[in-house]
Amino acid sequence: MPADPSRVIANLRELAALTSDANGAQRVAFTATWQRARDWFADKLAELPASYRIERHRDAAGNSWVTLPGASPKSLVLGSHLDSVPNGGWLDGALGVVTALEVLCGIARDSDGRPPFTIRVVDWADEEGARFGRSLFGSSAFAGTHTIAEDRARTDANGVTMEAALAECGIEIDRIGEAASERSNIAAYLELHIEQGPVLERLGLPLGAVLGTKGVERHAITFLGETAHSGSTPMADRRDALAAAARLALEIRPIAMRHTDAVCTMGSLKTFPGIVTAVVGRAEATLDQRDLDAEVLATLLREAQQASRRFADEERCTVEWSRILSIEPVPFHPELIELCREAIVETLGAPAHSLPSGPLHDAAEVARLGVPTVMMFAQSLRGISHNKIEDTREEHLSQAVAAFDRLAAKTIAWIESQPD
Amino acid sequence: MPADPSRVIANLRELAALTSDANGAQRVAFTATWQRARDWFADKLAELPASYRIERHRDAAGNSWVTLPGASPKSLVLGSHLDSVPNGGWLDGALGVVTALEVLCGIARDSDGRPPFTIRVVDWADEEGARFGRSLFGSSAFAGTHTIAEDRARTDANGVTMEAALAECGIEIDRIGEAASERSNIAAYLELHIEQGPVLERLGLPLGAVLGTKGVERHAITFLGETAHSGSTPMADRRDALAAAARLALEIRPIAMRHTDAVCTMGSLKTFPGIVTAVVGRAEATLDQRDLDAEVLATLLREAQQASRRFADEERCTVEWSRILSIEPVPFHPELIELCREAIVETLGAPAHSLPSGPLHDAAEVARLGVPTVMMFAQSLRGISHNKIEDTREEHLSQAVAAFDRLAAKTIAWIESQPD
Repeated sequence: MPADPSRVIANLRELAALTSDANGAQRVAFTATWQRARDWFADKLAELPASYRIERHRDAAGNSWVTLPGASPKSLVLGSHLDSVPNGGWLDGALGVVTALEVLCGIARDSDGRPPFTIRVVDWADEEGARFGRSLFGSSAFAGTHTIAEDRARTDANGVTMEAALAECGIEIDRIGEAASERSNIAAYLELHIEQGPVLERLGLPLGAVLGTKGVERHAITFLGETAHSGSTPMADRRDALAAAARLALEIRPIAMRHTDAVCTMGSLKTFPGIVTAVVGRAEATLDQRDLDAEVLATLLREAQQASRRFADEERCTVEWSRILSIEPVPFHPELIELCREAIVETLGAPAHSLPSGPLHDAAEVARLGVPTVMMFAQSLRGISHNKIEDTREEHLSQAVAAFDRLAAKTIAWIESQPD
Repeated sequence: MPADPSRVIANLRELAALTSDANGAQRVAFTATWQRARDWFADKLAELPASYRIERHRDAAGNSWVTLPGASPKSLVLGSHLDSVPNGGWLDGALGVVTALEVLCGIARDSDGRPPFTIRVVDWADEEGARFGRSLFGSSAFAGTHTIAEDRARTDANGVTMEAALAECGIEIDRIGEAASERSNIAAYLELHIEQGPVLERLGLPLGAVLGTKGVERHAITFLGETAHSGSTPMADRRDALAAAARLALEIRPIAMRHTDAVCTMGSLKTFPGIVTAVVGRAEATLDQRDLDAEVLATLLREAQQASRRFADEERCTVEWSRILSIEPVPFHPELIELCREAIVETLGAPAHSLPSGPLHDAAEVARLGVPTVMMFAQSLRGISHNKIEDTREEHLSQAVAAFDRLAAKTIAWIESQPD
């Protein structure tokens, strides 16, 4: 019996009603509203026939696991996250978890509660990092890429430490690495998520197969020129730090556009002293560069650095770069990408589109471990997410559930075909 | 007997010692230190021979006038300001007032205290506007261009109103316009000031004749695009408000450089939301444009506005302009400019350079009334002012005093040559 899209949509609406206010979803991890979402999810499981022998537990990092044991311990994991940003949308994360449960139930029904392989659903803890600024908390603990030393003392807006907030949810920060024990026997990981970007909508496509998550190079860049009086300093005598920064803000665009799917963003530019009557003596910019190909990413960075030095020289300024963050690209599994494309083609009766993910996802932490992984994207209206107006057409949500269900079935067959 | 430059320099050093701290000059108008500077100046007058019949008074706006009555009531006024910005320099304003007194004394000595024309020195009140953000306070009251309604409620950093601070100095804000009574019989106005810019130093010249004060067009410019996720939004789909603003930041340079001496400055640029992971949805810039020629100034503004609209269109953004300030250019008197050039040539034995002033000066308020006016600039080292490191070579200060003294003599002869 295939997964029922109408039940998924009804459940998502129920969850939204329970955990949103007038400003949007409020399922921020390690808060009472998040806990309410997780309790609601546990209640959904309790409605299932007892014959399904479904097991539920939380791991050492607070990830919530639902397991339908199969004939083989080899398992297919379906997951995403119930947590949201403050004033978030109804679909980001929740679509994947609620659909995963529906798919698991379908498999349970079809196999009379005893599938050939073990099926698991995971609700990763704190994907967003909204409260403490540390995203992918639970999945990075699972993957062993977490950073206890750095994260322990993180505080929220009220000064509560991350350590204390975790303790309140029964999580000991020094033990979160024990979530690694969940890794055993995982044969494949699948995640359905909204795109959170405009590509599928622009192409008029409901669904896409995700090629992987882009790597990120994130830097702070400071241009130093000389503050000077706006009235008495001739144009030719200026060392205008804003001019150097403005040239870089424009140059990152051709640097990115020489590569399909690469993006470069100057998201913040600050001017000092920043007053109307003074030439800018210091300009502080941020640069965020992303691509799925590590070599392309390195090229983006190198070209931006070279350009910045050329502009600094020409404007008689200096420039300093400081790395904020560097994340490697994580390509998904080629065979699972192909299965995802097939599932989309069969569901829609139309060609499938593949695209990289700009945002990071828990799936990247899983794929990093070498677990065969793929994600499916559903179209986001206006490409908007992290906002209460985040939305996807019901028709597209239904197609997403159906296609993801097909992908799960294909993946089970693929697991079966793999040598032990 | 010519003015004595060494006495001027000694007086300036004495004043600096009396009214500066480790951070620079602290003669902020309507403060105790400013009052100390003015008392020191009054004491200097008291040292002069009683036979000089020098009269001293403050007008309704707090401007301090020293008058040496001559055979004719027609008067030559020499002036500048003793007030400074906080942490200011030792020469900005003070050079002009102290030199004016020395020139007056020389004329008094040469004429045995009874010159053919009346000679006056004015120390304008609050040229800088440092405490209340209203520059040219005293001279604009004198000129009738003051704005009581707007200024009355201005407050300083401690919440003291301008009205209260003036009252403490014996000035009734509603009566400052009565300073207009000082206008009668003024035949010419001369002001010596440091350049506060790098032009004379770059040319290797100690002195310059000032052509007038540039007009100013000052605007706030807001570009609106669309905030979008830095990872999921392809380059071609962006409406990047920073890109539009960056193009304007660069375009204002060729717009200015098509005209000698014109300047355009983007002194502040703010990005919103201003975070590393978002394409800039709103960019707020300031633009300050200056030129001595009203038509050129209008062209600068028109071209910048046109360029901003083109960039907004091309970046699929919108742009809004809002005027902050608009000041007309004030050209000085052509014949007095010529006398100033002659005085410089005769003092230095080298050709004279003429230049416009970017910063505003009290002289502009006087010239606006139709009073024949000119300023002389002395070179500023590194073009730096409003800073404790503000300085001018002693040799150049001496040449400035000598040349300004010559200019005064030439101007007296010029007044004499004018029909009544």
